[in-house]
Parts: sequence; C-alpha cells; structure tokens
Amino acid sequence: MDLIESLAVKSEQKILLVVIDGLGGLPKKDKTELESAWIPNLNKLVAKSGLGLLTAIDVGITPGSGPGHMALFGYDPVRYLVGRGVMEALGVGLSPGPGDLCARGNFATLGPDGTVCERRAGRIATELCVELCGRLQAAIPTIEDVKVLVRPGIGHRFVVVFQGPGLGDGLTDSDPQHNGLKSLPVEPTGPVAAKSARVANRFIEHAAELLKSQDRANSVLLRGLALPPPIPSMRERFKLTPACVAAYPMYRGLAKLVGMDVLETGDTWQNEVQALRKHMPAYDFFFLHFKETDKAGEDGKFEAKQELIEQFDEEILPQLLALKFDVLCITGDHSTPATMAGHSWHPVPMLLNSPYVRPQLVIEEFGERACVHGSLGHMPSVKLMQLLLANALKLKKFGA
Amino acid sequence: MDLIESLAVKSEQKILLVVIDGLGGLPKKDKTELESAWIPNLNKLVAKSGLGLLTAIDVGITPGSGPGHMALFGYDPVRYLVGRGVMEALGVGLSPGPGDLCARGNFATLGPDGTVCERRAGRIATELCVELCGRLQAAIPTIEDVKVLVRPGIGHRFVVVFQGPGLGDGLTDSDPQHNGLKSLPVEPTGPVAAKSARVANRFIEHAAELLKSQDRANSVLLRGLALPPPIPSMRERFKLTPACVAAYPMYRGLAKLVGMDVLETGDTWQNEVQALRKHMPAYDFFFLHFKETDKAGEDGKFEAKQELIEQFDEEILPQLLALKFDVLCITGDHSTPATMAGHSWHPVPMLLNSPYVRPQLVIEEFGERACVHGSLGHMPSVKLMQLLLANALKLKKFGA
Repeated sequence: MDLIESLAVKSEQKILLVVIDGLGGLPKKDKTELESAWIPNLNKLVAKSGLGLLTAIDVGITPGSGPGHMALFGYDPVRYLVGRGVMEALGVGLSPGPGDLCARGNFATLGPDGTVCERRAGRIATELCVELCGRLQAAIPTIEDVKVLVRPGIGHRFVVVFQGPGLGDGLTDSDPQHNGLKSLPVEPTGPVAAKSARVANRFIEHAAELLKSQDRANSVLLRGLALPPPIPSMRERFKLTPACVAAYPMYRGLAKLVGMDVLETGDTWQNEVQALRKHMPAYDFFFLHFKETDKAGEDGKFEAKQELIEQFDEEILPQLLALKFDVLCITGDHSTPATMAGHSWHPVPMLLNSPYVRPQLVIEEFGERACVHGSLGHMPSVKLMQLLLANALKLKKFGA
Repeated sequence: MDLIESLAVKSEQKILLVVIDGLGGLPKKDKTELESAWIPNLNKLVAKSGLGLLTAIDVGITPGSGPGHMALFGYDPVRYLVGRGVMEALGVGLSPGPGDLCARGNFATLGPDGTVCERRAGRIATELCVELCGRLQAAIPTIEDVKVLVRPGIGHRFVVVFQGPGLGDGLTDSDPQHNGLKSLPVEPTGPVAAKSARVANRFIEHAAELLKSQDRANSVLLRGLALPPPIPSMRERFKLTPACVAAYPMYRGLAKLVGMDVLETGDTWQNEVQALRKHMPAYDFFFLHFKETDKAGEDGKFEAKQELIEQFDEEILPQLLALKFDVLCITGDHSTPATMAGHSWHPVPMLLNSPYVRPQLVIEEFGERACVHGSLGHMPSVKLMQLLLANALKLKKFGA
C-alpha cells in the first residue's frame, strides 16, 4: 500500500477531472492552439484557480493514450503498462478481464511458403474486414477450452481476445513487421505463456485454412499479444466512487480497467455533459473525456483544434461550472501539437479550481506558457490525483 | 551512507535555519497572511537572497509537525516517521531514548464489562488529570523490570513512557476510537513486541484498579504506542555541531532525536534570540523555532498570524541579521492557512541568504506566490539541508 492509499478517506466533496485529449500544443507563428483560442470562460476561471504543467511519463517521453490516462488516474504508467493488444481490444469496445489474452490482428497476403507479401493485404476495405471477421468468429468459437472473440477494426485491422483458464503473458509477434520476411510462430517467452502460444498459433492456422481462397486477405498476422495487467481499483486505492463519461471505447475501457463505472452516453460533447449531470448524485469522482482535440492535432489541423477548444470554452465549460463540483481540474493526457501531427512529449497545461488553491499573482490566461508560471508548478501527471484528493479534503494528515 | 553524508565536511561557516511554524497560508480575499503582512526587512533581504518553495512530504500530502521537521532536518520523513506516542512524549518534555516505549493515554469512563462509555472521561479538568497522573506514577513506578513514567497533558490527556530491556515496536491500540465499543487489549503485531504488550496491558489493568472509585475517569485507554525510530545524528551525517533553540517541548524533543544540543531558553521570541546569541560561538548550525504563527493559523486567526509575521520582521529579524550568520534560511515546516484552521499540503515559502545565491530577476517581496518565481525553484523539504550545507561550503565536490 502506498502513502496515498493509507491516507485516503471518504468525504462529501465531488471531483471532476476533464481531459481534453491532446490539449497541449506548439506555437504556429507566435501562439499555440490553446493560446490562440478565444477562451474568456477559462481565462475568467484562472483568477480563482491554480495553474501548473503535467508531464505524463518523463522529460522528453511521448506517451500513448494508455500511459497518458493511467498517469492521470494516479497509476504509475510504466508499472501499469497496458499492452497493445489490450488497448486495441478496449478500442473496439471489448472489456478484457484478468487473464484474457488480447491481440492486434492484420489481414495479410502470404505466399505459399509463409512469406509475407503484403502485411496489410493491400489495405482491404473495412466492409471486407467486417465480413471476414464474421466468418472467423463463426468458424472458430473456441480453441481447446478457450473462448475466441474476433472484432473488426478499420481497414485490414482486427482484434482477437482469448478467454479461458491458464492463459499467461509474455509472447512474441507472428507479424515480422516487414514484407518479404516469413510469418513467425507466436512463441512464449516463459513457461506461463505456453498455452497462450499454442492457442494463438492454432488460431492463425485455422484462419489461414478458412481464408485460403481469398485473393489478398488469405492469412492473418498477430502482434501485441498481452493480458491486462492486474490493477487495484480506484475504489480500493482512493476510497472513491468513480465514474467515466467518454464517448470513445478505448477511454471507456481504460476507465473500466481502473474500476470506474462506465456511464452510458452518446457521441457528442453535449451528450457527455447530459450523462454527467444525470449521474452526478451517485458518484464523487468523474472522468470526463473529450476526444476531438487530439484527432484535430493528429491530423495537423491547427485551426480545427483551436476551434474545438473555443467550443469547449463557450458551450461546455459554463454547463460544467453550473454543476458546482467542489474540485474541477481541466487538463490533457498529453500534448498533440498540430504542427507535429502527432502526440508529443511536451508538458500539458493544467488548471485546478477549488476553494483551497493559491491563484497566480499576475497570470490572466490559460495557456502552455502561462502555466509555466502557475502556482502549482510542474509535476508528474501521476501526482495529480493526490492533489485532487487533497483539494477535496479526502486525505488525512501524515504523521503526528 | 547517502551521497550528502559522503560529501559533508567541516567548515567555519555557520548556518541559521529559522522555522516559522505553519508559515504558508492561503489568500483571504486576495492575499495570504504572509502576503498581507508589512515586512520591509524580509522584503529588503529578498534582493540578496534566493527564494523557493518547499514540499514536506509530497504533492497534496499534509504533514504533521514530526514529518515536517524531520524533512527540514534532512531526514526522509516517511522513513523516519516518529510515532504518535513518541511525539506526545516529546510534547510533555520527556526525552525517550532508543528502546523506550511511548504511548498517548486518555482517562476514560468504562462500564463494568469494559465498554467505553466516554473516551475522554467527559473531558475532565487538567487539574484532575495532574492529580490522577501523580497517583498512577506513585503507585506504578515499575512493571517487571520496566520503569514507568506518567506525565499529564491537557484535559483528559496524558503520556506514559516505559523504559526497560526488551521493549519492541509494533502494537495495537487499546482505544477502540468510538464510544460504545469495548476497550481492547494491546496486542503485539510481531514477536518482538510481546513484552511491550504485556507491560502495557498490566499498566492498563493496574490503572483501572487504582481509578475504580473515580466517578468518570475510572480507566485509561492507550494508543499510538511506539518507540523512537533509530536515527543517525546530524553530527554523524552532516559533520555539524548542531543546536536547537525552541520554546516548545515537542520541537526540542524532535531536535534531540536527530542529535542536536537543546539549549535552555525562555518562552518568548526574545528569549530565544538571547539564547541563540549566547551560544553562537559553540555551534555551526542552529535550528530556531517560532511556534505562535502555527497556533494562530490553527485557530483560524488570519490577522493574528499576519501580525506575528510582522512582529518577526520588525523585532526579531534585525537581531538575527546582526548576528551575521554565513547562511540564513527562513521557512516553515508546513503551511497552516488560517482559512483552513489546520495544517495543509500547500508548499511553504523559503528564503535563503548567503553569498552564493542567485537572487531573482524581478521579485521584490517574500510571499507564497512570489516564491513560485524564485531562483531556487520548488523542491522537497528534505533536500533543503543539502542546499544549506552547500551554501556554507560544507560539501565537497562529487566525482573527479
């Protein structure tokens, strides 16, 4: 048990953690997406809030979505690393439990000797992927005593989850990562994964038999085979009753992994706020996730990301403030500068509003560079949760 | 041996660490207690000093007085956690040594079957507590080969220290913490504490016999049973000849635990400065403690805390500056915002004056939010001591 767990107590106070995915950016000309945005409501909040910067993993390390969120939830993102296969399973809406083996799959074109001709089967259409996954699922419901779940992704991508006793972690990929190399058997890196390897290889063989008449998608490659790590829940660790409001499956899945209740919600930001409002009485911690900012950043769309931040400020924030949470934190899981069209290592701006913060002396804006001068300083994302708990009076004093 | 110990050397330079207890605060209206105070002498010093912020334990963790001071003395406050019973013993002026078992006691009202009717015996008067402690002390001078020391506290509170061979740590409380529950036997959590438990339970039984004719205070409850942790002295670790000037017993006791000489002093701040001046030639490190600011904060008295800081600035600081210490550090062990009427997790402002600091570019005031922009940054309190040693030229270069 760590220090925070030993000090956590229940209190009446309610916490809202708003994650604007990929919030941080870099300047185009003079200002970042956030600094360019017209955000009068956020800026007004600054006068009553503490500002700071969060680093998800470490200086210079660019986090994936998994580690970025695990850190915000108060879990050491290196210790609780969620494997690729598990992230993909969460992304298609599956909920792998302890002991479930998850893998990312590709439909691929293999030669008669097992040489990979086309790792992505010529990027087949999603419609074909859906059809093929349906055929695989129907033909391979189980392997030995293991249940098999096959779910399509976009294009050539799919996910397979194996559910059954005795599936251990630690497996190599069948995907050789380059065309012209031979497809590899999945191999266990230790004795606990022997059955996992056998089942995965049987799936690959069976799939190849079923697909042999296909023109391009005549085989499958698996990679990122992994089990969800054992994760103590936020309920146990922090004495919280936590809930997630997120439209995207991956974030719902991550929240479920740490023991949040995942609330029903629609696709839009307005849907999410409605779900939050409806369920507010039943929980004392909410994780509210907005995805589109990250997508705009990934697509290199500076102005689109700026406008989404403006939309948050104008349409969403006033509704959140009206709910009168005791502790409100607005931040991101990582930076996604549009100028880089991808995630980056840059610290993420963070705003914390509660009755117990020291506002800044002079700063009047919420932005990456304003947060450098914030009263909360620069801290690892994983410590944010203890600061939220403190501000909600949910931590006892340490020592006499 | 840690890095600092391996680098510490003697030098002529003298260090003064001034702890203004509970110095940090939160704004009432716009400014904190410190920011509201008229402190021309401190502000003048800022131009020749480095400013920073100290966090005693970790982000969001509220420290007790023990951990707050252990960190300032250069001791990891989690590793060197001083148990409740020991803190209480120090607070009544006892000096428990290695192997001495300390406990916090309550006089309590128990029913015939051992049920706790009133955990605080109806909050009896201190005069009665003193009388009853005298009777217990007289009747129970020893148990087996263990010497028993009983000292009164305020109201229903007292302290008992057991001194003798073979007393181990790791004991449960006899106090069930709630009225209506049965008083519990003290139990050892491991074999080394078997004798400790036996002696503690014998004390409880014997006390109940002696007190049975009392109307309300007919029994005792013990909790926080603990031995002082083994602590290497500051002399060994830092090659210092350290002394403590503190009016309050608990802080004198903490200083003694880390090997400081505890100097005789009166109750007032002026008495403390006199003691410091008198003993200055004999030591190269002084811990000077001012308690009243913390009390004002704990009582929720914003203006009183502000005025005490002003008093420090006007009456005390000029005398300290006249002593011409080579290194002068002014900080606190934790924040005690009057608006919260208790200790808090907020970082503590820190000022370090020596010939070897970089003053700030623009800041002209000593305050919580000015220190955000200080040249010394934001650091754990436990690292302060190495900064003081460095500024006193008491640390060798590391590596060739």
